[in-house]
Amino acid sequence: MTALKLKPEPLTQSAFAPFGDVIELPGVDSYPINKGFTMRHHDLAHVDVATDGGNPLVSIFRFQPRSMPLRLDLMERHPLGSQAFYPLNDREWLVVVGEASDPLDIANLRAFKARGTQGLNYARNVWHHPLLVLAADSDFLVVDRGGPGENLEEREFQQAIFLT
Amino acid sequence: MTALKLKPEPLTQSAFAPFGDVIELPGVDSYPINKGFTMRHHDLAHVDVATDGGNPLVSIFRFQPRSMPLRLDLMERHPLGSQAFYPLNDREWLVVVGEASDPLDIANLRAFKARGTQGLNYARNVWHHPLLVLAADSDFLVVDRGGPGENLEEREFQQAIFLT
Repeated sequence: MTALKLKPEPLTQSAFAPFGDVIELPGVDSYPINKGFTMRHHDLAHVDVATDGGNPLVSIFRFQPRSMPLRLDLMERHPLGSQAFYPLNDREWLVVVGEASDPLDIANLRAFKARGTQGLNYARNVWHHPLLVLAADSDFLVVDRGGPGENLEEREFQQAIFLT
Repeated sequence: MTALKLKPEPLTQSAFAPFGDVIELPGVDSYPINKGFTMRHHDLAHVDVATDGGNPLVSIFRFQPRSMPLRLDLMERHPLGSQAFYPLNDREWLVVVGEASDPLDIANLRAFKARGTQGLNYARNVWHHPLLVLAADSDFLVVDRGGPGENLEEREFQQAIFLT
């Protein structure tokens, strides 16, 4: 098997649409509140966590960088809920996703480079590599699902796939 | 009536406990994931949005600063759901809250100064002033409730209350 190389493309709402939502300004539905002192950019992600008695969780994930160039070896997905990430350090970060097929089709993997003012929400069942950061102690606010049931599937790769 | 003055105190989990949660690191329930490259600080807020068919929303609010010293004139609360805020700019911000009594008891108002690495979650029915920022275009990620029903109550003050 030949090695596959993945090159990140810019994260945009249209390019990411098969995988979920990009959380960024301006929102589609934005309006002033608090006597005009605040602009609400409303409902930027399809939060989908209620299946099988699930409930929304707010957590913070602290990420450490990997050595580059990175050989990808594992993807995961969450069959019971969406998972949203928003960066708290305003630094670029990297995303690797695969469409919600079963099994994972590595020929269709996509990589994206996100700005530090872009978050995203993986739709339920969308395959993704753990997100990738470029600096130590990079923090993200996370909105995902708690509750009963097994909400994690993982797939290891046979083929060598490198993020370039 | 004499003017009331409110002086902000540091935001801590114990001081804020009557009003909701402080969202900060380290979490009480933290554990490594992604082969040790990530620490999950798990479930930092009591998200309470399911009443009367509600659902969780992820939004971004962009705040503008007020003139200081600030005369407070209005508090609000959300009878159907909690509301969580996390700052995206790592700057200090200010919070004014009142316990979930009916009517609002202004004698028991409290003000807090939050660090730029602290968020919070107002519990359902807790009175609060729109949060206060010190610099233009201060953004917060917000997790609150969408769905049917009237989820906003407001109270204007007769008495002059100043944030010092």
